[in-house]
Amino acid sequence: MIQEEIRRRNAGTLLRHVHLGGAVSRAELAARMGLNRSTIRALTTELARVGLVQEETPSDTGRAGRPSLLVRPASDRCYVLAFDVAVDRLVAARVGLGGVVLDRREAARPRAGPDLPRVVEILARFGRQLHRAAPPQATCVGVGASYCGMIRPGDGMVRFGPDLGWVDQAFGAELGRRLGLGLPVAVGNEAHLGAQAEQQRGAGIGFQNLIYLHGDVGVGGGIIVGGRLLGGDGGYGCELGHMVVNPYDGRPCGCGSSGCLEAEVGERALLDAAGRPAELFGRDAIRAVADDADRGDPAAREALRRVGDWLGIGVANLINLFNPGMVVFGGMLCDLYPGAAAQVRARIARNVLPVAREHVRLRTAALADDATLIGAAELAFTPLLTNPLHPTPPP
Amino acid sequence: MIQEEIRRRNAGTLLRHVHLGGAVSRAELAARMGLNRSTIRALTTELARVGLVQEETPSDTGRAGRPSLLVRPASDRCYVLAFDVAVDRLVAARVGLGGVVLDRREAARPRAGPDLPRVVEILARFGRQLHRAAPPQATCVGVGASYCGMIRPGDGMVRFGPDLGWVDQAFGAELGRRLGLGLPVAVGNEAHLGAQAEQQRGAGIGFQNLIYLHGDVGVGGGIIVGGRLLGGDGGYGCELGHMVVNPYDGRPCGCGSSGCLEAEVGERALLDAAGRPAELFGRDAIRAVADDADRGDPAAREALRRVGDWLGIGVANLINLFNPGMVVFGGMLCDLYPGAAAQVRARIARNVLPVAREHVRLRTAALADDATLIGAAELAFTPLLTNPLHPTPPP
Repeated sequence: MIQEEIRRRNAGTLLRHVHLGGAVSRAELAARMGLNRSTIRALTTELARVGLVQEETPSDTGRAGRPSLLVRPASDRCYVLAFDVAVDRLVAARVGLGGVVLDRREAARPRAGPDLPRVVEILARFGRQLHRAAPPQATCVGVGASYCGMIRPGDGMVRFGPDLGWVDQAFGAELGRRLGLGLPVAVGNEAHLGAQAEQQRGAGIGFQNLIYLHGDVGVGGGIIVGGRLLGGDGGYGCELGHMVVNPYDGRPCGCGSSGCLEAEVGERALLDAAGRPAELFGRDAIRAVADDADRGDPAAREALRRVGDWLGIGVANLINLFNPGMVVFGGMLCDLYPGAAAQVRARIARNVLPVAREHVRLRTAALADDATLIGAAELAFTPLLTNPLHPTPPP
Repeated sequence: MIQEEIRRRNAGTLLRHVHLGGAVSRAELAARMGLNRSTIRALTTELARVGLVQEETPSDTGRAGRPSLLVRPASDRCYVLAFDVAVDRLVAARVGLGGVVLDRREAARPRAGPDLPRVVEILARFGRQLHRAAPPQATCVGVGASYCGMIRPGDGMVRFGPDLGWVDQAFGAELGRRLGLGLPVAVGNEAHLGAQAEQQRGAGIGFQNLIYLHGDVGVGGGIIVGGRLLGGDGGYGCELGHMVVNPYDGRPCGCGSSGCLEAEVGERALLDAAGRPAELFGRDAIRAVADDADRGDPAAREALRRVGDWLGIGVANLINLFNPGMVVFGGMLCDLYPGAAAQVRARIARNVLPVAREHVRLRTAALADDATLIGAAELAFTPLLTNPLHPTPPP
């Protein structure tokens, strides 16, 4: 019983190394996992038999002697479907083991609406197309979705989706039903998934304490504490966008309050500060402000400076609270941050206690706009990676 | 090897049950730990042999049949020394296994100073007195200290003690040397230790996500995430007192910035808001404001209302970030909170997203001013509880 449990864990650990790190020699796996070569050989042979890894002789190692076989993830045989309900688009992708996006479909999303049946219809159609287009030897091992709102862990219920106006909608269950693949759909909040993706495959590889801020209309957050996503009692933690930073004359926030971080640094705050007309919105409008600032336009520079100061207060507060190794800016904050970085750094210098700011790094998301989609794919791979030889069967 | 490791863990788990929960029957331990009675008997017999538990027949169980033996912590045979360098006092205590304060010494601390040698001299004298006064059969198994500042994990170096003006002072090492017991001194930040004590023995028993705010001159924090203290990369997280809540006309803060939570709700903020003269300070002065507010004094009530609003903003931000089950107010916030609770609750209602505030409870510290001292004792017991049959020998 204990032996079987150890073998199960080792298989999961080995597959995770290959999935996250790519092709690696058996010798390197043995060194990383602290196991002997014969144990590694038994594990890779078993994982190859069930179609999860492929083994091959390296072309030229430059050393004498028999080279150690290379172990690769079998991206063409094992995949997940990943979905992303973002503020401006609906995305679906077939993502192979190893994290390779093999195929994708994307549709623009109107700012107002659509409702649950319409979103699910579009995503399910994309999903079925991707599934049919997969090669015959490939198996779908999971389905994951990223959603721009608060998600109940376990059943993928959208508790609160401010942007689409959804309250208590059974998004995960409906998408699973309409896909008709007999697989459950694991749903996560977009910023939570973006944080995990950046930590596993993006700017924050190796960081155990990381804060990810995801900007679009609002600002969401994903916070990794000691290697794990901060959930809190109900899974609703990380709501850094509703940190009050401007208690006096703060801008009204979608949550009903005012002066929240997302009200002061979200899309509308920047566009208003730059004097852009009220009918402009979206990423192109944000990028236009950033580009104008790059070209020296005073109004755009001042807008980034003002928004950057609020962002800096928020980030400084978070560094004092979490003493992270890295802060990652994602979503539209990728475009906003470079022009606001000086202001953010000034606030950190002023407001963070010296010992907590000693080693912190600030970065934009390395996975850019795919951070949330990749996070959804990782969520879908989780059961397989936990127990690759006997993954949890679909209910 | 694996069997020995399992036995070691089970012994630690059993001793932890007895240490934190008090006397408990073998049958109950078997049920809680999911082990059979013969395994429990072997463990308790071994723990009794090394003087960590005592077993006795319960007086009357009200049931037929042979009663299950009661297992108690051997508080009279196994103890730690715990120290507390607080803002207004120096405390030393002998704390028996089971968390019983058996003996204590206390001295008032002048607000300005004293320096490291003087603090260590006083504490070491108290410690040696407590050690000499212990009964001959009792063994000291560890030493822990709580300090009102930022502590480097591992060696008990005070990185920053704003209140005493200490920077990079080897407090833990010096106290250990002057005690001369051949035991290392484990040092923790007072609010971190207060949080852990409240979670283990106070208001927050059973809570996995808990925020503890410790007020005195400033405001420190200890945050439990998923059952563990939030440390961050360097162990310097939880600095909620330096969250900027008032970015415009904030009061100057000891950190060099202004508008920090501790500047707006610390001792001086309340006393100034209540119109108390600048030479008044300390807990008695805080209690006088709270008492006056209770008696209906308008200036005192207004002071608590104003300070409570800033406290409410800070607490609302923390609930949005951590989705905790409980928020505990410790130190002088025990006195301040009851008169400010309405304001704090109003801010939570206004600023926390509904799903995150559904189940949160607000409480004052059940251990009152001993939370930090008890936390230091728990820190000192940690090596024993990790491996009770072969505790780490002193270096």
